[in-house]
Amino acid sequence: MLFRKGRKAELPPIEETAKDFRIVDGEPYMGEIFEYDMEVSRDFLRAELTEDEYVSAYTRVINRLRAHGTHRFFAAVDPYNRYLGHIWVCILDDTVDFVPTSYILDVETKVHGLGIGSALLKRAEEWARAEGARKASLRVELNNPAVEWYRKRGYSERALILEKPL
Amino acid sequence: MLFRKGRKAELPPIEETAKDFRIVDGEPYMGEIFEYDMEVSRDFLRAELTEDEYVSAYTRVINRLRAHGTHRFFAAVDPYNRYLGHIWVCILDDTVDFVPTSYILDVETKVHGLGIGSALLKRAEEWARAEGARKASLRVELNNPAVEWYRKRGYSERALILEKPL
Repeated sequence: MLFRKGRKAELPPIEETAKDFRIVDGEPYMGEIFEYDMEVSRDFLRAELTEDEYVSAYTRVINRLRAHGTHRFFAAVDPYNRYLGHIWVCILDDTVDFVPTSYILDVETKVHGLGIGSALLKRAEEWARAEGARKASLRVELNNPAVEWYRKRGYSERALILEKPL
Repeated sequence: MLFRKGRKAELPPIEETAKDFRIVDGEPYMGEIFEYDMEVSRDFLRAELTEDEYVSAYTRVINRLRAHGTHRFFAAVDPYNRYLGHIWVCILDDTVDFVPTSYILDVETKVHGLGIGSALLKRAEEWARAEGARKASLRVELNNPAVEWYRKRGYSERALILEKPL
């Protein structure tokens, strides 16, 4: 443990190394991917949940999402193979078009402005195209600036999610 | 068969009887519900699919949707117990809020302007509230006039579905 700690301290911070990122298979990074996702997802919560309720609901939702379709994770890593971000993509028949569709379930990066998100998205789209997906689809919360980010990358509005408190 | 045909011909058309509709459990009407849904859903198709591809994809999608959550169907019927429309609602933890959410998966009516859709929606919401759902959520295609219909019934925009051809 002391050695590990020491080694870690010797490495430059990811903010300095991230510019030399590369995109790799996400499987070896699943622990970091879901740890980071669980942290980020908490900020989108509108309901008041205890820590236990959140962890339990988060786990149920993730398992449900993974129960159908072909899933693939890609990670962005720095030259020391440290996790910088990820994308989660899943191919399923669309519920409206009934064609094979790649759902972008998650894109997250720890360092911004270096093109990491774009590179992850591009890799996921290439993989999905090769797997036979005819379109990519994703959900963005209203007023999330990510809408503009996706628009610049070829995405356009298709449908609305409406909600009502009960 | 002849008898059935004869009896059917004696009944007034549903356009005349629908005003005296009532909302009932949808289970006895599942055949008619999915027959009608498959017909209506075809109009939303953007991809070109053969009849076989459509039926196969439709069945896969419906089975996938029914694999998780608590599902309930309600049907609207006329005084002769003839199918007039239905609503399909399903309770699941939301993927963003992580709270029990009632997804309105489908609302369809054969006769319009009589309040059948509103009555189906109200019944589904009441059921979902009693089952512990904290909100109702649904997807509407952009520019579908149904957006206004839902807005008048208390729904507001929460998120966007973005798409890109691959």
